[in-house]
Amino acid sequence: TTTATTLKGEPLDKASLDAMLRRRMFYTPSFEIYGGVSGLYDYGPPGCALQANIIDVWRKHFILEEDMLEVDCTVLTPHDVLKTSGHVDKFADWMCKDPKNGDILRADHFVEDILEARLKGDKEARGQKVEEKEEDPKKKKKKTKGLEAVKLDDAVVKEYEEVLAQIDNYNGEQLGELIKKYDLRNPATGVQPSPPVAFNLMFQTSIGPSSNLPGYLRPETAQGQFLNFAKLLEFNTGQMPFASASIGKSYRNEISPRGGLLRVREFLMAEIEHFVDPESHKKHHRFHEVEDIELALLDRHTQLSGQTTTKKMSIGQAVRDGMVDNETLGYFLARIHLFLKKIGIDQSKIRFRQHMANEMAHYACDCWDAELLTSSGWVECVGCADRSAYDLSVHAKKTGAPLVVRQRLDEPKIIEEWEVDIEKKKFGPFYKKDGKAIEAAILATTQEERGRLVKEMEENGKVIINVPGVGDGKVEVSKDLLAIKWQKRVENTREYTPNVIEPSFGIGRILYALIEHNYWTRASDGGDEARGVLSFPPLVAPTKVLIVPLSSNKDFTPAVRRLSQKLRAAGISSRVDDSSASIGKRYSRNDELGTPFGVTVDFQTIKDGTITLRERDSTRQVRADEDKIIDAIRSLVNDTKTWQDIESELPRFEGQEVEVPVR
Amino acid sequence: TTTATTLKGEPLDKASLDAMLRRRMFYTPSFEIYGGVSGLYDYGPPGCALQANIIDVWRKHFILEEDMLEVDCTVLTPHDVLKTSGHVDKFADWMCKDPKNGDILRADHFVEDILEARLKGDKEARGQKVEEKEEDPKKKKKKTKGLEAVKLDDAVVKEYEEVLAQIDNYNGEQLGELIKKYDLRNPATGVQPSPPVAFNLMFQTSIGPSSNLPGYLRPETAQGQFLNFAKLLEFNTGQMPFASASIGKSYRNEISPRGGLLRVREFLMAEIEHFVDPESHKKHHRFHEVEDIELALLDRHTQLSGQTTTKKMSIGQAVRDGMVDNETLGYFLARIHLFLKKIGIDQSKIRFRQHMANEMAHYACDCWDAELLTSSGWVECVGCADRSAYDLSVHAKKTGAPLVVRQRLDEPKIIEEWEVDIEKKKFGPFYKKDGKAIEAAILATTQEERGRLVKEMEENGKVIINVPGVGDGKVEVSKDLLAIKWQKRVENTREYTPNVIEPSFGIGRILYALIEHNYWTRASDGGDEARGVLSFPPLVAPTKVLIVPLSSNKDFTPAVRRLSQKLRAAGISSRVDDSSASIGKRYSRNDELGTPFGVTVDFQTIKDGTITLRERDSTRQVRADEDKIIDAIRSLVNDTKTWQDIESELPRFEGQEVEVPVR
Repeated sequence: TTTATTLKGEPLDKASLDAMLRRRMFYTPSFEIYGGVSGLYDYGPPGCALQANIIDVWRKHFILEEDMLEVDCTVLTPHDVLKTSGHVDKFADWMCKDPKNGDILRADHFVEDILEARLKGDKEARGQKVEEKEEDPKKKKKKTKGLEAVKLDDAVVKEYEEVLAQIDNYNGEQLGELIKKYDLRNPATGVQPSPPVAFNLMFQTSIGPSSNLPGYLRPETAQGQFLNFAKLLEFNTGQMPFASASIGKSYRNEISPRGGLLRVREFLMAEIEHFVDPESHKKHHRFHEVEDIELALLDRHTQLSGQTTTKKMSIGQAVRDGMVDNETLGYFLARIHLFLKKIGIDQSKIRFRQHMANEMAHYACDCWDAELLTSSGWVECVGCADRSAYDLSVHAKKTGAPLVVRQRLDEPKIIEEWEVDIEKKKFGPFYKKDGKAIEAAILATTQEERGRLVKEMEENGKVIINVPGVGDGKVEVSKDLLAIKWQKRVENTREYTPNVIEPSFGIGRILYALIEHNYWTRASDGGDEARGVLSFPPLVAPTKVLIVPLSSNKDFTPAVRRLSQKLRAAGISSRVDDSSASIGKRYSRNDELGTPFGVTVDFQTIKDGTITLRERDSTRQVRADEDKIIDAIRSLVNDTKTWQDIESELPRFEGQEVEVPVR
Repeated sequence: TTTATTLKGEPLDKASLDAMLRRRMFYTPSFEIYGGVSGLYDYGPPGCALQANIIDVWRKHFILEEDMLEVDCTVLTPHDVLKTSGHVDKFADWMCKDPKNGDILRADHFVEDILEARLKGDKEARGQKVEEKEEDPKKKKKKTKGLEAVKLDDAVVKEYEEVLAQIDNYNGEQLGELIKKYDLRNPATGVQPSPPVAFNLMFQTSIGPSSNLPGYLRPETAQGQFLNFAKLLEFNTGQMPFASASIGKSYRNEISPRGGLLRVREFLMAEIEHFVDPESHKKHHRFHEVEDIELALLDRHTQLSGQTTTKKMSIGQAVRDGMVDNETLGYFLARIHLFLKKIGIDQSKIRFRQHMANEMAHYACDCWDAELLTSSGWVECVGCADRSAYDLSVHAKKTGAPLVVRQRLDEPKIIEEWEVDIEKKKFGPFYKKDGKAIEAAILATTQEERGRLVKEMEENGKVIINVPGVGDGKVEVSKDLLAIKWQKRVENTREYTPNVIEPSFGIGRILYALIEHNYWTRASDGGDEARGVLSFPPLVAPTKVLIVPLSSNKDFTPAVRRLSQKLRAAGISSRVDDSSASIGKRYSRNDELGTPFGVTVDFQTIKDGTITLRERDSTRQVRADEDKIIDAIRSLVNDTKTWQDIESELPRFEGQEVEVPVR
């Protein structure tokens, strides 16, 4: 574990940060006056604006930049869709129950917690410095209860570390074995929990008045995009490759959510489904634009060997080496990195971690997560999965809808292969109600199987077909009902199911990491450590400009109103703070809100029309007439000038931030 | 009923419009390849962009213009919150069941349909022209089945019309009586349905792994805003009045949704909760800005008298006359009107209808709906309710949270009233486990009750307190446990529960009405009636500019790319159509998408750098060099110039829209 630090290198005082975020209403537990519900949070005004700005950058960076087709599909999803996609059967976490007190525990987190506690105890016993990973207070208490300073064998330490490095790779049975093997007990009761069982993470409901249509709240936005594939392809005038994208809420009924915004039951996602021809080797026509970008990569082999060291490498190199499977996947990893950088994520706190085989979602064939370093360790914030043709194939198979691309071939293709010819007139009457199932089973046979069936038919005058659910699962078909012939045909079109590369963003987690990466206190500059600052880039800052009249004196009102209107006309969000607090207090409040610029209207303004402009991070000020200041703000917000530029152009203002109340 | 017409007065061909919206993927039934789920729709790329633009205008018009505090609360809501708010008990529609075939019918719609069918039959029998109200085909079939050309008595016609004018005012029992009185039978079976029963419209689910926390999907965004009231007031540095606002999905499990986007189970809402001091007479400091705006008003008295004629009146007059209860309510009605006008709603198709007493939601004390005229009649698209102090009061009472404003009084206030004094030392031990409930009941007594209790105490030495749930509900309290005294005290602060004015927007319904109001075909101008046009104002049009290279010739690529980049830099959304269709076809496609401007890159462009600019509605074109055209587009999109201005400034281009394929 690494100690995450703040923007300027101070160790993070998580309690102070949390108190500040609460005080400034970035976010707050939902239904708090009713006692709250874990895993649900409401965003207050600054959190809401920060989120909207992140989404706005995302939309421009991905959707507009690459002409993606945005769709907005429903959250309510009928059972059949998620049964087909595999979520009903496989979208689950492993859950244990404490037989003594009924505690419900998420199995992987339980194993992780206890092993980490033992390693910590070992370090204490060895007199080494113990680094605290920040967690919510409740959990800490539990851990502390189980924590004893017991020295472990070196071999045991190594074993625990190896288990932890691949904790996401274990299934329920394996987690159960670890619990037994290491005798892991719930600190609250001192007993081993029951063996892990699967708990489906989808919220269930029923649609319509007669309760006969079971449904779920979607666990991802992807399925709606897949189901609309044929319409989207048509909208795109049949051209491939293309991407759809969606921004919306998804839901996961987490077993025991903790850790604030990092694990919630309702969350905003932004997902892209990039559809690509598998025979194109998943090349990307803009890969050359990003190939020199360096990423910190943690591949699956490194993790399986019990290590967590990253390799710094250009994405071009990673794709050439085969570490990242293909250009399209690589292209999106680089674009994800650029997006995170653009909104103000600390580049040294980004790594891309490859999923291990057992860890991958049931639909994925390769997957890399962009993880961001926070006080809770490395947190998965963006997933980038190659879902291959999985989803389109299963939905097409289930519904018969043609979720395929038909490509006109430049040269017709001659195909020779085994074709089955069913004697329909006899076949139906002979098998009666089982006829359809048997026919489907015959049509589903592969070329290889058909080759074998031909021999079988020659030898026995009949073949045995596997048809699960009919009789004992084996059905005899005689040669008067079925012929298998070697046929030649000419094809003018090629039909294929596209593969899908899916970058999927958890906006809440990114927002939280962004806050930690941009947080510091004035103590770093020798000032007051109680004065927190959030140094968001202007691009995503909730409000760009704070307008501060020196006091509530009515003479300031016209200038304040004029400034507001001019900033609004320039498309720059501002807020007026005409409360009775001192100027200094009001600027402090806005440092905490992450507002990058402040303008003060004072008596001098009324005399000569000049106002001061303050920069949040340096707290330095310049003074000039209104229009010059608005021009300066515009170029700062649009990122065409730096604060240094402005300081060199406009006269410095040395007035102190007065701390006296002004009303 | 009135026949809604298209933008240029042609009668609406709903089937053509629907086919066009489907073809251009504005929206599409969700899960269509799985057979669809009624009341659920997905938005495709143009629908998604149109929705985003409407929301963007909404945010600027309301939130930014009035410094509202935007919040984003969860959809998942625990049972207790919605029990307190009254939704668990009262948020229901009346549902009937057909005893013969099990059909589930929404009672008010059923009564409405049958009576309308009878009136239609009467008109046919009288040889009058019957105006078709457009509905989905399924329903039409049903209606036709029940429709016979039977002449009714004039008195019966009048009676039916009066019932229909106040159809929203009947409760379940009354609807049941109407069914019996008029012998209303389900056309599908010829039998009367069962008496109406209440069906709760909320989707239910359960939160967490142990299924012990029942919850719902919120039916409105309002409750989250109310629960955060104390934090929002603090964020607003205690200043009143203020408003919060929220944009997000809400859910209603409609009994049998039909009519496309007009009745759906999952929908985007934008809601404002404006908190105001009830003692301010709900004055609004910006009312003077809107008081001359004329609105079409349909008040509750007119409806109760069986009429539906609106009165055209300035909102200032309506408030002065007491027709609209207060300035704040009136201010928002006018602001709603301005918003609808801004996005392109036809002003002659807006009316404000006041709710009748029985129709109002359980929380409202006055309510006006902005209704928009569509081919399905007048449709409620915005509600504007005065919820009084209902919600804050019930949540405060339930949770004990102080959802109040504390206002420092300029002059202290002397209050004399009955105060209760409980002898705690004896009281607790005497009543044991019931003590708390009894104490709460005593503290909840009103001044009037206390006056009576004083007399009772004087006469009997004890009083009887009603405490539901304790013993038989009546508890004796003797004078050694309780004293009630007439006390004088000085108050320096006033504490009050704010009232709430709530403008609430159904974005999907507005979007649909906007489409109808802006739809027409080239037949209106003497052209092809198969060529539909959506004349959205540039402000909300999904895409502002279509870029059309004459053909897929590679020589056009640099100019196309340069244009795209320049438009993107100017913040103007554009799309390239380089498909192989003819220029004319490509422009036609974009008329259907509502794209207001098109630019063509041709061989002349390569020679001299000029491009043509086409205006959607007139199909007229001008030609000039690239930068002049981009300037023109910018001023058209920002609404600083009209197309007439541009035509007078730049040379007209007379080139035909060539219909020949160009590849």
